[in-house]
Formats: sequence, structure tokens, C-alpha cells
Amino acid sequence: MSNGMMRAAVLEKPLSIALKTVQRPVPGPNDALIKVHCIGVCGSDIHYYEHGKIGRYVVESPIILGHELAGEVIQVGDQVTNVTVGDRVAVEPGVTCGRCNFCKSGRYNLCPEVVFMATPPVDGAWSEYVAIRSDFLFKLPEDMSYEEGALLEPLSVGFHAMRRGKVGPSDRMLILGLGPIGLLAIQAAKLFGVTEIIASDVVPFRREMALKLGAAAVINPLQDNISEQLSLLTGGDGIDVIIESSGNSQAISDTIRLVNRGGRIVYIGLPTVDQIPMDMNLLIDSELDVYGVFRYANTYPAAIQALKNSDIDLRQSITHKFALHDVQEAIDVARTRKDTSIKVMIYPDNDHVEK
Amino acid sequence: MSNGMMRAAVLEKPLSIALKTVQRPVPGPNDALIKVHCIGVCGSDIHYYEHGKIGRYVVESPIILGHELAGEVIQVGDQVTNVTVGDRVAVEPGVTCGRCNFCKSGRYNLCPEVVFMATPPVDGAWSEYVAIRSDFLFKLPEDMSYEEGALLEPLSVGFHAMRRGKVGPSDRMLILGLGPIGLLAIQAAKLFGVTEIIASDVVPFRREMALKLGAAAVINPLQDNISEQLSLLTGGDGIDVIIESSGNSQAISDTIRLVNRGGRIVYIGLPTVDQIPMDMNLLIDSELDVYGVFRYANTYPAAIQALKNSDIDLRQSITHKFALHDVQEAIDVARTRKDTSIKVMIYPDNDHVEK
Amino acid sequence: MSNGMMRAAVLEKPLSIALKTVQRPVPGPNDALIKVHCIGVCGSDIHYYEHGKIGRYVVESPIILGHELAGEVIQVGDQVTNVTVGDRVAVEPGVTCGRCNFCKSGRYNLCPEVVFMATPPVDGAWSEYVAIRSDFLFKLPEDMSYEEGALLEPLSVGFHAMRRGKVGPSDRMLILGLGPIGLLAIQAAKLFGVTEIIASDVVPFRREMALKLGAAAVINPLQDNISEQLSLLTGGDGIDVIIESSGNSQAISDTIRLVNRGGRIVYIGLPTVDQIPMDMNLLIDSELDVYGVFRYANTYPAAIQALKNSDIDLRQSITHKFALHDVQEAIDVARTRKDTSIKVMIYPDNDHVEK
Amino acid sequence: MSNGMMRAAVLEKPLSIALKTVQRPVPGPNDALIKVHCIGVCGSDIHYYEHGKIGRYVVESPIILGHELAGEVIQVGDQVTNVTVGDRVAVEPGVTCGRCNFCKSGRYNLCPEVVFMATPPVDGAWSEYVAIRSDFLFKLPEDMSYEEGALLEPLSVGFHAMRRGKVGPSDRMLILGLGPIGLLAIQAAKLFGVTEIIASDVVPFRREMALKLGAAAVINPLQDNISEQLSLLTGGDGIDVIIESSGNSQAISDTIRLVNRGGRIVYIGLPTVDQIPMDMNLLIDSELDVYGVFRYANTYPAAIQALKNSDIDLRQSITHKFALHDVQEAIDVARTRKDTSIKVMIYPDNDHVEK
Repeated sequence: MSNGMMRAAVLEKPLSIALKTVQRPVPGPNDALIKVHCIGVCGSDIHYYEHGKIGRYVVESPIILGHELAGEVIQVGDQVTNVTVGDRVAVEPGVTCGRCNFCKSGRYNLCPEVVFMATPPVDGAWSEYVAIRSDFLFKLPEDMSYEEGALLEPLSVGFHAMRRGKVGPSDRMLILGLGPIGLLAIQAAKLFGVTEIIASDVVPFRREMALKLGAAAVINPLQDNISEQLSLLTGGDGIDVIIESSGNSQAISDTIRLVNRGGRIVYIGLPTVDQIPMDMNLLIDSELDVYGVFRYANTYPAAIQALKNSDIDLRQSITHKFALHDVQEAIDVARTRKDTSIKVMIYPDNDHVEK
Repeated sequence: MSNGMMRAAVLEKPLSIALKTVQRPVPGPNDALIKVHCIGVCGSDIHYYEHGKIGRYVVESPIILGHELAGEVIQVGDQVTNVTVGDRVAVEPGVTCGRCNFCKSGRYNLCPEVVFMATPPVDGAWSEYVAIRSDFLFKLPEDMSYEEGALLEPLSVGFHAMRRGKVGPSDRMLILGLGPIGLLAIQAAKLFGVTEIIASDVVPFRREMALKLGAAAVINPLQDNISEQLSLLTGGDGIDVIIESSGNSQAISDTIRLVNRGGRIVYIGLPTVDQIPMDMNLLIDSELDVYGVFRYANTYPAAIQALKNSDIDLRQSITHKFALHDVQEAIDVARTRKDTSIKVMIYPDNDHVEK
Repeated sequence: MSNGMMRAAVLEKPLSIALKTVQRPVPGPNDALIKVHCIGVCGSDIHYYEHGKIGRYVVESPIILGHELAGEVIQVGDQVTNVTVGDRVAVEPGVTCGRCNFCKSGRYNLCPEVVFMATPPVDGAWSEYVAIRSDFLFKLPEDMSYEEGALLEPLSVGFHAMRRGKVGPSDRMLILGLGPIGLLAIQAAKLFGVTEIIASDVVPFRREMALKLGAAAVINPLQDNISEQLSLLTGGDGIDVIIESSGNSQAISDTIRLVNRGGRIVYIGLPTVDQIPMDMNLLIDSELDVYGVFRYANTYPAAIQALKNSDIDLRQSITHKFALHDVQEAIDVARTRKDTSIKVMIYPDNDHVEK
Repeated sequence: MSNGMMRAAVLEKPLSIALKTVQRPVPGPNDALIKVHCIGVCGSDIHYYEHGKIGRYVVESPIILGHELAGEVIQVGDQVTNVTVGDRVAVEPGVTCGRCNFCKSGRYNLCPEVVFMATPPVDGAWSEYVAIRSDFLFKLPEDMSYEEGALLEPLSVGFHAMRRGKVGPSDRMLILGLGPIGLLAIQAAKLFGVTEIIASDVVPFRREMALKLGAAAVINPLQDNISEQLSLLTGGDGIDVIIESSGNSQAISDTIRLVNRGGRIVYIGLPTVDQIPMDMNLLIDSELDVYGVFRYANTYPAAIQALKNSDIDLRQSITHKFALHDVQEAIDVARTRKDTSIKVMIYPDNDHVEK
């Protein structure tokens, strides 16, 4: 830590990313400095890489991407009491104000003052080090790996979806869209005791992965008549709750007719079109509950506890590992290899990558 | 009760209704026979009168309409213990099976076996008498009139909407559509302690009535910029919960952008088109809760208790009263006089009508 | 079924039970007749056997005990549609009115009109046949045994406790008292995703069984300092929710100081003394939630679904099996062998007993 | 504000309070300095005055008491954006860390790091000025007086109790203990739409005040048979939810038998004895919900909104007003005049006191 510099992957403009030497962050009195062990590639990272923006967030100056990470505490500010140097920690990547109505009432994911990694103009963590307010660090149990710590981030979205959807062990569940979020939502559902999860995606590799992670059955929406399949698979009982993580317009539109009367639908996947035709008549007649999901809140300590003693291994969805200096290759795999890749993991310290 | 016959308004086919003498219903062992005191005209009655069907429910043989009623118990089956002859009662018009999962878990409004008055082929109560299972009868307190008893039915929809929407005294509320359901929803909201209700309708008379019933302000959606008005009226705080009772496509579509982040929307009004364009991206980004409302459950005893000691008078929305033999006139007023009529009430016993 | 008679174990008075030939029940139009396959011995059965009463329920005339059962449908009334002859079913042993406020609002376990098997003066099912309203019968999936079907009854108490206590996968749980209810509550907790269950009982055999069923650790309250043990076992995180199923006064009293601030306590076990000293000051200062549990509601279909695809085997708690004609021996084992017995199962058809 | 000093009432030791000139607090960058307009005398202030401690909180050095206040913002730190100089504000007197699990999940009243006014060793506000983190300041609407702003503090306890007890407009409620907390709980209940509130206290003046504030009926527990009275007053329907604010052992013990089956009890009043005999058997058999209440969270903005447009005037419970230099007299009235005093209000600026 002598010279205060570090390597980081910097997105200069869309499609142009390069390893640079930049200033190492200096932790404030309430912060800790983390030596990043591993950090995932998220769909949003790819989207910024390709398009330079997501909705209202626009990349206007060079930015470091990445927000799914775990690492080691190597320095703490003088106000920090919850972690110490040497601790292995997962990093929750959004720092909230703690003072607005949303923060005070337990929905801090809606805090308008949130500073969220890799959301322009805030730098993320495809770098050797990050500094962050220490109450967003969570110690990893001894038997939990850094990889699992990093995957708590995408798992959190599914975990939050389960809470929003009031999911319990007697629910028959359909998960639409089996990217990393959808696949980790399968594992989140299992943590909540769900035993009958039917998963749907157009990509064969993802459907296979879903079965491996614990889905009871899978559906190919291009081939199958979904309604018929669901009826068949559930013995006519139907689906109580749908987790929509594809963001596909047709899938979103279909949810209303695929769920049971009195059922619940949780929407995670952001569609690319603004207006989607929805059968509101049926939503009302079926007296459905519908919940939007935006990020997550209070999931890190909860998910760590839920994973304790469980036989669920989050690492099953990691398909590729790259050193930080191979970030371009990592991105290319995540962008283009939907037939063979799920979660791509980046390691700032090359030694950790088994190539 | 000598001859076992009674007068009833029978809908033979769309647009053709006539007073007939029909068999008086005979109560079974768990039923009570009610002498109807007054009974409201509902939008659904008008819809059957005009179109002969609503969605999947089709008038295929002559039917008696009407399901908003109160009356006097004049005979009880030998298993009946909760009411006795002479009791003044409100009638909850849907008899459920009590045995399915929906019934057993408290959502009996979704019972697939429900027998609901004036929903083809089940007869309603525009007649002198009705028989019904006695557990759907609720004694009126001494100071509650028959008219209020009858209006518990449309009030129940709003009352159920407040429960579905988890409404409490600190909510800033917008109610869209000020027909009888929307107007009674204002009173339901007041029962739940809501103090800031903004109401919207295109009809001036309805907006005036809304103010009379306790709305803090009204909006004309044809004239006003609703977003701006809401911001102005709430001092920038915005709307926490929307009750949509207009069924208007544009209104339904607008709800998502009119509610605060983290807010709730309750949909009551059934739209006439199947697919409505909805900004699902914003619903997700704002992490909204959305609830459909289909009829109601467990509202009668609750609403009677809530009205106790309250200064709310449901009768304010009654604008017209007709004798049963003037049913045609009653229907015509309800159909065509949106500028001056809200709730039209029918009295089988002429003496009760002040003309 | 020729002569309409059957064998049954009849409790004539406390401590006097005998096999008799009695009238076989005749199913009404909404009932089904069940050939009992197996039926458990419950603590309440033993209590009636020993004392002739439980609280306000007194055995005043000969009664057939037993209410944890599964069997085969052999006859159905003409109104029955949900089961057919030949179906393997679990029997929920309390028939409710379906018409009171409790039934209509989803808390039918509190129905004042409930007719509950083996609660005087209602006969239970230590017999060859029982008749019951068919909506309290639940088809067993192919891979679910009759024994598991019978054990759904005591499991239901724990399942209901988990719902009452809003239990989720991140809860650290303490279960006090490891009789059949407490042990099955461990399995219920696992169905809800709980991973850290600490279980406490004075009997070594029960503690061993708790570990076998999935408890993370066990405590001997006679030997251990419970507070210290809990702190040690949870790494200082403490207990979020306690399930009290011992009914022991000291245990009940201790709960308040054993749970975390903001925690929840669910009381199942009925104490034998009326007044128990409770630290209400601490309950208030810690802002606890406390929930009583009386039987259960809506658990049978939910638990059947939750057990689907799960690796939980309810039969692990069955330690003894007897033929109906050995009912005296079954009772004696259940009463006196706390060091080696948990759940004793009775089989009316001798052939099913492996002796 | 030239010399940086101010007058304050300082408790040197039990029973010894005196007006002193002390350092005026200097607001930090996130704080605002408030010129106190009025501040109530709370039971806890009296308790510290008399006994020098409450439970684990002990007065070990001179302390300024008082925590129910409103005033004017006269200076703001440079990070403050939510209030400006000149704003009339209510002061929520407990500053929480915003970073622990309790804070992040919406239960910040349980924050172990809370700094709460007038809880040793933290100074309160019986003084001319206080400084506090600005997110605990809430602007008063134009038509809300400073007195009402100050009374939001004791009202908040009742408001929080209503939320904890899931209170709604159909609840039949019993409130035990009619000190300021109990009386303001009547008004809180009315904000939540409760129409049938029965209130109990031994002091006639308090019962009269309860009726004035909106109780439907009152009970004298020394004279009346409470069970009989409740049955009579509710027409046999009984009590759905009890708010216990007396702290009296007998009252606490009685609650379990005074509430309906399936009912809820909320405990606010801290008893002076540690162990209270409770009928846990009945609590379980009746399947009650019990909730402790410790202070409050998220109530200030909610209560301000709930009071908007309502006809409830919190000031009705103010019986006495004193200038700060008459603090001894204020305390004496609050301590000894239970027959004529409810809320005693202190005004640092003499001019506001109408004597």
C-alpha cells in the first residue's frame, strides 16, 4: 500500500475498457478499505459497456464497473467497530443516507441519496481495492468462500423478491428467465422452503443449470404451451407465485394468465420497452397481488444466516473465472456466450484464477 | 304470506324488464326469509340490463337483478340461531361453500362455488322477498337505517380495497372514478382514518359529491394536469396509495406514474378492454405494490362496527328513490343521469318512497 | 362392511380402556367413510386416559380416543366430489362450522362450533373406521405413506406455529420441549428454511432424536446454563424466535430473557398451572411479539405441498407400532417410556404391524 | 445568541432541581439549533426527579430533563437541507445510529446506540435551546401549534401501539390506564378509525377526560366488575384489542381474560415489579397476540399527516402551563395533582404562558 495507486478496469466510453493505474481510495473515519478478492460480472455492467447507459443513468465520464464482490479488510477508519483488519467480508455495494423516510422505515433500497457502486457517476469495484462505509460490510462465516460472498449480491435480488412475494414452503412457483438473477432466485426460493419450482428459459444450458440448482421441472417457452405444461406439472393445482426475471415483454404480459386466482407476481426483470399490454381485467378479477422489486434491503445478514447449515452452494452458477487483466475476455464471454456461461467472476489478484 | 307469491322485477332480455308475480322463495333449514325494505341499483345491474352479460356471465333466461339490500327477517329455518323474526338485517348477497381452500383461508370472495345474487343464473332481490343462508345476514344497530344497511354492499368493495391496500391514517390517497363505488370508497377511506383524499372524475356533480363526502380536493382529469395538481395539492409529498375505480383505460395506465415510489395501487374498476399498456419498467423501478380487488370478504360486521359512533352517513350518496313498480324509471335514471344521480334506491313496499 | 359393526378401543373411565365392538359410523351426504390405516397416540389421549379430563373438557361417558390418522376412502356421500373410493387420505380431525366470523376470516381453529375428534364428548379414531366431512380429507401424494399422513396432525401444530411466529430462513430458533410436538416442530422449522435450530429437553433420548431430525445443537436445561449456551452456540447473535412446546412453567417464564430484543415467542405447550410469573417489564422493554398457538388451520394441504420434493421424513419420530388390540400396551409405552419412545402408532388392521 | 449561554432546569440529584445558566449547545454540521417553544412534563421526568433512576438508567451527574418539545429552528449546520432557519418544528428526541440491523430494518427504536434526550446521561430540553440531528426535526403544518408539536411525542407511543397491534376501524378496544399516554392513545386510536373505545382508570378526572377525548364509555376498575361491564357495553361482542398503559400489575394480569379469543394485547406501561402472574394457559388456548411497545419509530411524519384535516385537538389534555423558572411548581403539579392534572407544559419563554 506504499504508493497509494492500484490497477482498475476503466470504461472510457461504450465498448472501450482498459486496465489503468488509478488512485487507491482512502477510507474515511467510518469506512474500511477492502482488498478485492473476486467480483462478478453483472448484466448491468454489460449493459453500460455496450450502451453507456441504463435508463436515467448515463456514463458521462470514465467509470470503474462491478458491484458483486467480497474481499479482505486491510484498513479501517477510526470510527469503525464492526470489522477489523483481516476480516473476510462481503460488500453490499449501495451506501444509503440512513436519514430519509425510506431508510428509517426499512426500505433503504428506495433511498434517493443512495450511492451505488458502478451506477454512474459512482465507481464500482473491478479494481484491486475499494473503500466503503463499514456498516455495508458483512463478515463471512469460516465455511463461506469469497465467491459465495460476492454472489450474495445477485442472490439478494431473489431473496428480496421472496420476501416481497411473501413466499413460503407451500407455494408452487414459476420462475421466468434464467440468467444469473433467475438462477440464483431458484436457490433463494429453496432457502425459503419452496419445493416445487418450475423454471422457464429459451436457452438449453440455462434450463439444465436450473435443474441442477433445484428446479423441479423446466419449460422452453418457444416450444411448450406454457399453460398446459404448468397444469400438467402441478397436477392441475397451478402456480401460486411467479418470479419474473426475464424482462421479456411477452413473458411479463403472460404472467397474469399463468398464475392462480388469488396469486402473486413479483417483477424483477426490467423490460426494454416502456409500455407492455397487460390484462388488467383479469388481474382484478383474479384479485392478484403484484410486487415490483428494485434491488434489495436487509438481505446480506439474512442470506448469510439462511445459507448456514444449508446444502446450497451458490458457486454452482459460476461458469468462468478471469484475472482482472483479462477483463475484456471476461466481458466478451458474459456478452456473447449465453449458451455456456452464467456467472463470470473476475479476480484482481491473478493467483486466484485457475486457468 | 298466504299465497306464496310475490312481485319481482324480471329482466326477460336486454332492455326488457317488467314487474311480474313469481313464486316467493321458501327458506331451507339454514336460511331466513327477508322482506326486502330497500335495494340499490348497481352498475352491474345496469350492465346486464343493457348488454345481457358481463364478461363470462351471460343472461340466458329471465333473471331478477339487484344485490344491495336490507330488510326484515320474517321467517327462519329450524337450524338458524343468529337471527330471529323481526330482526332488521343487511344482506351480504354472495353465499359461499365454506369448504374450499379460499373459504377456509379467509378469502371466500374467491370461492369458485359462490352463489351470488343477480349474477346469472342466480336471481337477485328486486322483489318483495328473498331467502338466504342466515350467516350472510347481519343485524343492523338501532341507529342504522335500512338504507345504510343496503349501502354496506357497495361500501364493502371500498372497505375491502382499504384492507387490500394496507391503508392507514398517514396515507395520502388518490381515488380515480367517482361513481357509487368510488364515492363510497371515500367514506371507506375516512373510516380507516385517511385525512387527505384527492378525488378525480370528469362529471362535475360527482366531484361536488366527493367534496361533500369528505374529499380534501377534486381533480377534473379532462382539464387538469393531474401530476401537477397532485404535487400542488400535497405540497410536493405526492400520493402514497391510489384507489382506481373508474375502469377507464387511460386512468389505469396513468396510475403507475401518479403514485410515489414504494407506493400502492388498488384496482377495482373493471376495464372494458382486455389489454391496457402499462409502464412495467416504472412499476419495477418504483418498487410498487399492486392489488386487484374482486368483491369483498368479512366486511359486513367490520363495516357495521366501523360506522358505529362515526359521523359518516352513507345515505349522502342516495340521490333517487323509486317504488318497485317504477323499476324502469329507476333504471333509466341510473343509466342516463350521470350528471345528477349517484345511488338509486328501490323500495318494494311503496309506502317507503317519498315522492 | 356387511353388518355395520367395527372394533374400537373404548375408554370407559380413567385408566380403563378396552376393545369393543361398536356401531360403524354411517357417512352423511357430505361425508366419507374411512378405513383407518394407522393412528398415533397423542399426549392428549394419554391425559384423558390418566385423568379423564383436560381443562374444560371432561370424559363423562365412554369415548373413543385418537385423532392423528390416515386411511383409505371406502364410501362417499352423494354430495362428495373432492375424494373418491380408493383414495389414500390424511384426516384433519376437527370439523368446523364454516359460518362463524372465525371460520370466514381464516382462523377456523378458533371456531366455537368445532367438532374435534377425541375431545369429549366427540369420538376419535382408535377404531377400524371413521366418517368425516369430506373437505377435511386430503389426498396423499403417491410417495407419501399413511404414517406420514397421520403425522401431518402433530406436524400441523408446528407448521401453524411457524406461520404464527412469522418464521423465515434467517431466524435463529430455540425449541423448548422435545416431545412429539417439539420434535415435529424441528421438521416444520426446516420446511420453512430455518437452518439454526437449538433444541432443549431434559431427556437424553429426545435430545438425540432432535439432532437426528436436524437440530444444529441441543441443550440439557438441567445441566447447562441456557443463556450462556445460546450465546456460545450462536456466536453471540442470540435467538430471534422461541417455540415453547414443553408447557413447563420455568421454561415458559424463562423465554422472555432468552430471546433477542425485538424477538418473537410462540407458545404451544399448555402449562398445568394457571398463573406463571412473567417478566412483563422485560417483554415491554425488549418490544417482543408473543403468539399463542391453539391447534392449527389451513395446514394440511400446505404441509403436504411443503413436504413434496423435500428430504424430510416425518416417520423418523415413530418409535413403536402396535395393533389395535394391543392398545393397552401402546398406551403404556407412550405413558411410561419417555426414555425410549416418541411417537407410538396404532394399526387397526393387524397385518400392517411388523412385530 | 451572543454569549453562548442559556437557562436550563438542572436536576442535581433526586428531589433537587434548579434553574441554572449553562452552555448553549453548538450544532454540528448535520444538526440544527432549536429555540424551544414548549416542552411537556413526562412521567419518566417525574420518575427521575423522585427516584434518580428508571431500571437500568441511573442519574449519576446533573442532568437536564424533558423530551416532549417543539420550537423554532434558529441555526443549521452546513450539511442540513431538510429544515431552514425560521421553521417551526417538532423534535423527535432520540437520535439513532442509522447503521445497525434495527435501524436498517425499520425498528430504529431498538437501536442500541440511540442517544435519547433526558435518559441519563443525555441531557433533555427543559432549557431555552437544544441542538439535534436535523433528520429528527419535522416541520409543523401552518395550522398545527407548537403545543401539538410537543404532544406528538407522547402521542407517538400510542400511534406506535396502534401499528404494533394492527389496529383498524372495526376493533373494539379497551384502554387501561388514563395518564397522558393512555389518554393520547385514545386519540391515536381515533386516528386509526376505532369507534368503540372503552377506557379504564381509578381517577374520576381522568375518566372524564377520556370521555371528552372520545372514549365511548369509561370504567372504574375499583368499583366495576370489568368483565361484566365490557360485556354489557359491547352487547356481548367483547374486546378485540387491549392497550395496557397503566403499568399496574393487576391490570396487566387481567388483560388475558378480558380480551376476546383470537384477540390482541399491546403492553405499554412498565410495571414496577419484575414478575407478574400471567394465565399463560388461557393466552395459548385463546391464541392471543401480544405485543410489547418500546417508544416508537417512524411516527412523527405519519402522525402529522394523520392529524391533517382531522378534528382531533391534542391540546385537550394540557391542563397546566408554567414558565421555565416555575419548573418546580410544574413538577409538583404533575407529581401530586392526579385528580386535576394531565399534561403539564413548560415554556422557556415566559411570554407564552397565560397565567
